[in-house]
Amino acid sequence: MKMNVDELILGALREDISSEDVSTNAVMKTAVPGQAELICKEDGVLCGLEVFRRVFELFDDGTTIEVLSAGDGGARKNVFADPAEAGKKDRPFLDGDCIRKGEKIALVKGDIRTILSGERTALNYLQRMSGIATYTKKCVEKLEGDGITLLDTRKTSPNNRIFEKYAVRVGGGQNHRYNLSDGILLKDNHIGAAGGVKEAIAAAKAYAPFVRKIEIETESLAMVKEALEAGADIIMLDNMSVEDMKEAVKLIDHRAEVELSGNFTLENMEKAKGIGADFVSCGALTHSAPVLDYSLKNLKRLA
Amino acid sequence: MKMNVDELILGALREDISSEDVSTNAVMKTAVPGQAELICKEDGVLCGLEVFRRVFELFDDGTTIEVLSAGDGGARKNVFADPAEAGKKDRPFLDGDCIRKGEKIALVKGDIRTILSGERTALNYLQRMSGIATYTKKCVEKLEGDGITLLDTRKTSPNNRIFEKYAVRVGGGQNHRYNLSDGILLKDNHIGAAGGVKEAIAAAKAYAPFVRKIEIETESLAMVKEALEAGADIIMLDNMSVEDMKEAVKLIDHRAEVELSGNFTLENMEKAKGIGADFVSCGALTHSAPVLDYSLKNLKRLA
Amino acid sequence: MKMNVDELILGALREDISSEDVSTNAVMKTAVPGQAELICKEDGVLCGLEVFRRVFELFDDGTTIEVLSAGDGGARKNVFADPAEAGKKDRPFLDGDCIRKGEKIALVKGDIRTILSGERTALNYLQRMSGIATYTKKCVEKLEGDGITLLDTRKTSPNNRIFEKYAVRVGGGQNHRYNLSDGILLKDNHIGAAGGVKEAIAAAKAYAPFVRKIEIETESLAMVKEALEAGADIIMLDNMSVEDMKEAVKLIDHRAEVELSGNFTLENMEKAKGIGADFVSCGALTHSAPVLDYSLKNLKRLA
Amino acid sequence: MKMNVDELILGALREDISSEDVSTNAVMKTAVPGQAELICKEDGVLCGLEVFRRVFELFDDGTTIEVLSAGDGGARKNVFADPAEAGKKDRPFLDGDCIRKGEKIALVKGDIRTILSGERTALNYLQRMSGIATYTKKCVEKLEGDGITLLDTRKTSPNNRIFEKYAVRVGGGQNHRYNLSDGILLKDNHIGAAGGVKEAIAAAKAYAPFVRKIEIETESLAMVKEALEAGADIIMLDNMSVEDMKEAVKLIDHRAEVELSGNFTLENMEKAKGIGADFVSCGALTHSAPVLDYSLKNLKRLA
Amino acid sequence: MKMNVDELILGALREDISSEDVSTNAVMKTAVPGQAELICKEDGVLCGLEVFRRVFELFDDGTTIEVLSAGDGGARKNVFADPAEAGKKDRPFLDGDCIRKGEKIALVKGDIRTILSGERTALNYLQRMSGIATYTKKCVEKLEGDGITLLDTRKTSPNNRIFEKYAVRVGGGQNHRYNLSDGILLKDNHIGAAGGVKEAIAAAKAYAPFVRKIEIETESLAMVKEALEAGADIIMLDNMSVEDMKEAVKLIDHRAEVELSGNFTLENMEKAKGIGADFVSCGALTHSAPVLDYSLKNLKRLA
Amino acid sequence: MKMNVDELILGALREDISSEDVSTNAVMKTAVPGQAELICKEDGVLCGLEVFRRVFELFDDGTTIEVLSAGDGGARKNVFADPAEAGKKDRPFLDGDCIRKGEKIALVKGDIRTILSGERTALNYLQRMSGIATYTKKCVEKLEGDGITLLDTRKTSPNNRIFEKYAVRVGGGQNHRYNLSDGILLKDNHIGAAGGVKEAIAAAKAYAPFVRKIEIETESLAMVKEALEAGADIIMLDNMSVEDMKEAVKLIDHRAEVELSGNFTLENMEKAKGIGADFVSCGALTHSAPVLDYSLKNLKRLA
Repeated sequence: MKMNVDELILGALREDISSEDVSTNAVMKTAVPGQAELICKEDGVLCGLEVFRRVFELFDDGTTIEVLSAGDGGARKNVFADPAEAGKKDRPFLDGDCIRKGEKIALVKGDIRTILSGERTALNYLQRMSGIATYTKKCVEKLEGDGITLLDTRKTSPNNRIFEKYAVRVGGGQNHRYNLSDGILLKDNHIGAAGGVKEAIAAAKAYAPFVRKIEIETESLAMVKEALEAGADIIMLDNMSVEDMKEAVKLIDHRAEVELSGNFTLENMEKAKGIGADFVSCGALTHSAPVLDYSLKNLKRLA
Repeated sequence: MKMNVDELILGALREDISSEDVSTNAVMKTAVPGQAELICKEDGVLCGLEVFRRVFELFDDGTTIEVLSAGDGGARKNVFADPAEAGKKDRPFLDGDCIRKGEKIALVKGDIRTILSGERTALNYLQRMSGIATYTKKCVEKLEGDGITLLDTRKTSPNNRIFEKYAVRVGGGQNHRYNLSDGILLKDNHIGAAGGVKEAIAAAKAYAPFVRKIEIETESLAMVKEALEAGADIIMLDNMSVEDMKEAVKLIDHRAEVELSGNFTLENMEKAKGIGADFVSCGALTHSAPVLDYSLKNLKRLA
Repeated sequence: MKMNVDELILGALREDISSEDVSTNAVMKTAVPGQAELICKEDGVLCGLEVFRRVFELFDDGTTIEVLSAGDGGARKNVFADPAEAGKKDRPFLDGDCIRKGEKIALVKGDIRTILSGERTALNYLQRMSGIATYTKKCVEKLEGDGITLLDTRKTSPNNRIFEKYAVRVGGGQNHRYNLSDGILLKDNHIGAAGGVKEAIAAAKAYAPFVRKIEIETESLAMVKEALEAGADIIMLDNMSVEDMKEAVKLIDHRAEVELSGNFTLENMEKAKGIGADFVSCGALTHSAPVLDYSLKNLKRLA
Repeated sequence: MKMNVDELILGALREDISSEDVSTNAVMKTAVPGQAELICKEDGVLCGLEVFRRVFELFDDGTTIEVLSAGDGGARKNVFADPAEAGKKDRPFLDGDCIRKGEKIALVKGDIRTILSGERTALNYLQRMSGIATYTKKCVEKLEGDGITLLDTRKTSPNNRIFEKYAVRVGGGQNHRYNLSDGILLKDNHIGAAGGVKEAIAAAKAYAPFVRKIEIETESLAMVKEALEAGADIIMLDNMSVEDMKEAVKLIDHRAEVELSGNFTLENMEKAKGIGADFVSCGALTHSAPVLDYSLKNLKRLA
Repeated sequence: MKMNVDELILGALREDISSEDVSTNAVMKTAVPGQAELICKEDGVLCGLEVFRRVFELFDDGTTIEVLSAGDGGARKNVFADPAEAGKKDRPFLDGDCIRKGEKIALVKGDIRTILSGERTALNYLQRMSGIATYTKKCVEKLEGDGITLLDTRKTSPNNRIFEKYAVRVGGGQNHRYNLSDGILLKDNHIGAAGGVKEAIAAAKAYAPFVRKIEIETESLAMVKEALEAGADIIMLDNMSVEDMKEAVKLIDHRAEVELSGNFTLENMEKAKGIGADFVSCGALTHSAPVLDYSLKNLKRLA
Repeated sequence: MKMNVDELILGALREDISSEDVSTNAVMKTAVPGQAELICKEDGVLCGLEVFRRVFELFDDGTTIEVLSAGDGGARKNVFADPAEAGKKDRPFLDGDCIRKGEKIALVKGDIRTILSGERTALNYLQRMSGIATYTKKCVEKLEGDGITLLDTRKTSPNNRIFEKYAVRVGGGQNHRYNLSDGILLKDNHIGAAGGVKEAIAAAKAYAPFVRKIEIETESLAMVKEALEAGADIIMLDNMSVEDMKEAVKLIDHRAEVELSGNFTLENMEKAKGIGADFVSCGALTHSAPVLDYSLKNLKRLA
C-alpha cells in the first residue's frame, strides 16, 4: 500500500508545510521527546489508523504511534476486521471499531515538533476516512434484513480515492469498480455513442471480452429488456420508480445481477429495500459524508 | 495558477484512468467530434469553471469549453466576481454566480471519447468546489448585518487545499493562513511547549518578527489578558461561552483583532453575531460541505 | 493516452540525453530546418506511429511527422485499423499495416538537430512495438481456423506495458488483464494460501464480487472439477498435455471460459488448435519478440 | 545505484498495481510470514539479483532475499564477478554465474502477500536481464580467440537502459557510450549536416575537446582515409564487406581504434573474427535477446 | 525538513551521476569500508552539516557522519546554536561555529565508493551554505552597536532557497518573507498597477487582512507620508540618501517598522548604521557571497 | 533543452509561489495586458535570455519576450554567438553580447500579473548566468595570448549545473566533464583506493576503454612520470609551483594533454600563462562569481 499512498501523503504534508512550521519552530528550537493523545470527539467508526501513522512516519521516522487497548474487546462491534483479531481480549483499536466520544485511541510519541507539525495533516486524513466509514455504516444499517449490498461510486475527492474506497469497506460497504480502467459500465452517453443498447454491449464484448463483466445503465423497462437480450452481466436501474424497479427485477429474474442507482442517501436509503436487487450504489458515501471529529490533546514532555 | 494545479489535476485523471477508459474505447474506436451540456442539478453557487476546463484540456488539448450566457446579467447575484464583469449584459457564467437547478452552464466540445473519459474527474472538482462555495455563502448570509468576517481553516481535503480555499472566497468568505509556513498561530500545545502565553508570544516575536502578525489561541479571560499584555496581534477565542466572548472583546478593546473559533457550522453560525468580533473561523466550510450536483447531458455528434 | 505516456516518453528521452547531444550540437550550432525519411528495413507489421510522433513533439514541438501514403490502399492488409479507414484510397500508413522492407513510411520534418537527437528514442519505441505486433500476427496466423483467441500476459518490459499491450492488439491479439488491480487470476500460490481451489474462489467472490470475473489456474483435471463446482468464470489449463486439455474442455462444457497457458511460442502455437478452448495466452509476445528494424535516412536541409 | 533505479522500479510496480492486488488480498486478509523459492527454468547466465531484491524491498521493506549457495564454488564459471569472490567455497550465487535449469537460486522471505504481489515485477526484471547476459555470453564465446571486444549499443528498451547495459557487462561484453551526452559518435547524418568527414571531426574537436574521444562512422575506404587524416580517435566500419573491413584495418594501422558495426547477431558474429578490429557492436544484445525463464515456487508459511 | 529537501538533494545527486561514477567504479569493484576527513580550508562560519550528512545518507544509507569535537567548547563563538548546547564541554561542531583553516570537522564513514561519489555534491552544499553564513556574519559585525537587524531577500539561487535562507540565520541574520505567497510587499510596479500608494495598501488590506503585515516600498519622503497615512505596517526606504532615510525615520516615528534597502553589501553596510531603522535587507547575502572552501582528505580503509 | 530544464524552472517558480502571489493578486483582480522593460544595471556579458523567456512562458504561455535590437550590430563584441548571426545589422541582443549599464535588453509583454509574479525567478536565473559569463570573460581576457583554454569544474550550485556550464561557454570558457558519469578523472582518493597511479590508470582502461579519455590528478613530478608511463590521456597538475608545472610540461612533451588546477581565480589567473599547458580549470567561475544586476522597469498597461 505504501507504494501507492506515500506520494499522496507527502503531497498533503508539503501542501501544509511549504518551507517550515513557523509557529512550532519558534517555540521549540531543538528536539524534545514527548507524546500526545489521539482522542475521538464524536461517536462513529474508526478508520485510517495506518494512514494516521504513516503521516507522522513520513514526516519523521522517529515518531511512533502506540494504539491503545480497545478495552471491551469482543464486545466492541467491528464490521470490517478479521473476527479472529477483533474478538481478542485487550486488543488494540482496529479500523472498523465503533468508538465513542471521549475515548483515547492512541498515543503519538516522538519529537514534540513533529507531533505539532504533522497533527493537522494526520487528522485531516483520519477524520475524513472515519466520517466516510461512519456514514457508510449508518447506510448499511438502514439496509439490514434485505440482503442487498451497498456500493460506492467514482464520486470521490480528487487524489483521495484509494483512502475513500477503503473507508467504504471499513464501514461495511463494498466497492464498485476502482476507475475507468478496471470495469465496464455503459452509461447513457456510451449507449448513445454506440447507437443503442444492443450495439453498446456487443462492442464491449468484442473489445474487452476477458476478465471483465459488462454492466449497463438502463432508464426504462424497455432498455432493461434490450440489455438482457444483449447479454449484459449486470444491469443498473437508474432513477427508476419503486414499481419499475420491482418490475425490472422480476423481468431479469436472476439472468443478470441488478444494481439500483440514483441519488440514494442515508435519508432515503430504505427505498432500496424490498426490491429484490443485488446492489445499491450511493455517491453520497464519498462526496457528502461529514467528517468525524478527533483531536490531539494532553501533549507532554517525556523526560 | 496552472503551475500549481496541473500536477494535482493530472494526478486525479490518472487515478481515474490507470491504463485506458475501457467502456468508452469499446464503443468508439476513432475520434468523433461532439458536444455535451453541463447542467446544474441543484440551486447553489457556481465554482470551479476554470478547473473544469483544465481537466479536459489536460486530457486532450483539442477540447474546448464554451461557457454559456448567464442571461439575466446584472440581475444575477455574484458575491465574488469583479462587479464590472458581473454586471455586464449577456456575459457568460462566472464563478460566484447563484445558479438554479436545470440551468445550462456550458458546452463541452471535442472528441466524444474525451468528453466521456474526462467527465467524472471534471465533475468531481466542480461539484465539490461549488458545494463549498454554496455552503460558505449560506454561512455568510447568517452573519449579515454584523460586520464579522467568515474565515476557513486548514481542515481541507488532502491535496485539494488550493481548490477549497479558493471556493471559500468565491462563496464570500475569506482565507485564514494557507498553511503552517505562512502564518503564526500559537495553539494550546505551542503555549504548553513554550511554558506559557507570554513565553510563546515572545518566542514567536524573536523567531519571526518580520511580515507576519502573531495570533494566539485562548481558552479563558485570563489567557486573553496575558495575550494582550504580551502584544499578540490577533487573539482567538476558542470554544468560549457567548458571555465570555463578549467580555473578552470588551477587554481587548481594539488593541488586537479578535477571531471566534470552535465548532461553528451553518446551523449555529448566528451565535457569532453580536459579539463584536472581527472574524469567525469555520472548519465545516471545507470538511463537511455537501457537494452541489451537476451532470453532463445531451451528448451529440457534431457533423 | 498522452496523459499516461508522456512521462514515460520523457523518461526515455532523458535517459538518452542527460545534458545535451554532444555530437549533434558540435556539428550544428543553430536551428536548420530539414527532413528525414523513416524507412522500414524488414517485412512486418507497422506499430507505434503515434508514439514515434510524440517522442519528437515532446523533444521539440516544432517537429512534425508527415505519414506517407500507403499506396496500395485497400489492398494492404491491416488486422487492426477500422476497416472503413483502412480501405480508403491513398490513405496514409496506419498502425496494423503489413509493410515491406524498403518502404518509406513517413517524413520527419523540423530542426535537423531535433531529428538527430530524437531519432534513437523514437526508433527504439517503433521497432519494439512493431516487433511485438509482427510476432503476434505470426502467432495469430498459426491459429487460423480454430476460433481460439490469442492473449498476452503481464510478462512485459518494465515501464513499457502500455505500449506493448497496445502492440499485441495491433498484431491481432487481445489483452489479458492489464495488471494485478483490474482482474482476478488465482494461481497455484493463491490457491495454496487460501487452502484450496474452493476456498480461493469463495474468498475471491466475497472480496470482489463486482464487475470482475474470476479466473483460476488449474494443473489437473481434479482441479478443473473443483473450480467448476466452485463457480469459476474462467478456467486456465496450465501446462497440461493435449489429451488433458481436451478432456478438460469436455468436462467444462461451456460452463466457464477456457484459457490455455504454458510456454506457448510461435514455434509450438499450433498445439493450441483443435482443443476447443476459448483463449491461449503467450508470454513470448511481449518478452521475447525480436524488434522490427527501421532507420531514418536521407536527411536533407529544407531551404 | 539505488538513487537512479528506485524510481524506475517503483514505476514498474505501480504499472502492475494501480490500486491493489485484488487476487492476493482476496485470499489473504492479514500479514502471514512465508517464503518461496526462486528457481531457474533454463540454462543461462544469472543477472539482476540486486534488482530482484530491490523490487521486493521497495514493495515492503520487511521482505528479505536469502541468496542460496552456488554449491560447486570455484568450479562454477563466472565471467563478471571479482575472481576472489567467485572462487570462494560455498559462496552464494552471484551475477554472472552460469546456472542450470532447475537450480534453486534464492529464497524470498516475508509477508506472503508481498511475495505474491511483487513476484511478476521482480521476475520481469530478472528474466530480461538474465536473457541479455546469456545472449551476450554466447556472442562473446563466438569471438573467442580473436582479441576483439563485444560492445552494446543504445538500442535498449526505453527506461531500462541502466539495467540492460549492466546485463551486457555481466555477460562479458563491454558498454559503448551510455547516451548522447557522454560520448561523441558522428554518424552519416552528422557528417552530412557538417558538410563532410573532415568538417564534422573538426567541429567535434572544437566543441568538445575535453575528456572525450571522437568516433566517426564510415561506410567506405575513402571515408576511412578522410577520418584518419582528420584525426578521429575511433573509426567505425559500418556495414562493410569483410574485404573492405580488412583493408580498412590495414589502412588505419593502429592510428585509431576500430569498431565493426552493422547487423551483427549471435548467428553471424563469427564474421567479426580475423579482421583485426578492436571492437564489434551489436544491437541485438539488448533489443532482441529472448528472456531467461525463472519462477517462484514452493510457497509455504513460516510458523 | 527532510520532507522538503530530500527531493532537491536527490536532484543534485542525479545531476552529478546520471548513470554511474565511472572513475570510482573503475578502481573499486566491491564495497570496502573506509573513512575520510572533512577539513575546513578557510576561516569562516560552519553551516550545512545536516545537509552534508543527508547527501551521503540518500546516496547510501550505510554511510555515517561522525561530527568531531569542537574542542575549545564554550570558547568557540557561535551566533546561532542554542547557547546551552553551544556552551557544553567537548561538544561536537555545530552549525554557526566559527571555524579555522585546517580544522577537522567530521569523519565520513562507509563504503569508500560512496564517499568518493557523494563527495562533490555534499561539498557543493556545505561550501555554499558556509559561504553565505560567513558573509552574513561579516555584515552583522559591521552593524554592531546599532540595534538594526540584517535581512535577506528573495534573490537566491533557484531551487536552493531553503538552504540559503537557513544559512542567513546561521550567520546571524534574519529572514525576510520566504516567497510571494507568505508575505505582502508592494513594490513600485504594484503601486503603479493599483494607481497609487493609498490604493495599493487599501487593496492589500481588503485582499489579505489576516495574519499578514503589509509592507510597501517607497522612494521618496512624499511616498513615505502617503504610506503612513494609508496604514502600512512596514515601510521600505529604497535607494534613498542617508539624509532622506533619517528624515523618513523621524517622520514615521515608530508608527510603522522601517526597512532600508538598495544595494547594500559588505563593503557599504555601515551606511545603514545611525539611521534609526529597524531592518536592512541585503541581496548580496545570497546572490554574491563567495563559497567557503572545504575538502575531504586522508581517505583510508577501515579493517 | 526544454526537456531537461523545464522541471528545474518549474521547481524554482513553485519555490517562489507556493500558493499565490498575494501582493500582485491583491492589487490586480483580472488580467490586464501590459509590458515592462528588462534593463541591465551593470556592464557585463548577457547570458540566459532563453531561460528568462522560458520562466515567463511556463508561468503563463500568453507571455512573450521581445528582445530589442542590439543597435551597434557587428560592433558589439560577442565571444559566443555564431559570427554570422552576431555580425548582422540591427539584430536583437544575443547571449554573449557585451552589454552596458542602462541598456534596454528586452520587453516582457503579457498579463501584468504574470510579469510581476514571474519577475524575481526570471531575474534570479538571468543575473546568475550573466554573472558567471561576465566573470568567465574576464578570466579569459587574463589568459589572452597564451593559447591555454579555460575550463570550469563540477563546483556548481546544486540543481543549476546545466545553466552554469552553459554560462561558462557563453563567457568564452569551455566545459570540463559534465558529471561523474561522462568523464574519468582519477583524483588522489581514487589513486589511493587503487593502490597507485599505474594501478588506477590500468583499472580505468579496463573498465571504460571506450569513447572516454582518462585523466589523472598529479601532485608531484614523480606522479607525472608514473602517469605518463601508464598511458594517461590527460594529466592534471594540481597545486604545483610554477617551476614544477613548467618542468612537468617539458616532461610530458605533448604525449598527454596538460590541465592546471588549484585555486585559480580572476585575481591570480595570469599565473597560468607561460607554462605551456593546454587547459586551466577554475572552480570560482561557478561557485564564486558575483551576479550581474538587472531589473524590470517602466511597467505600463497596453490598452
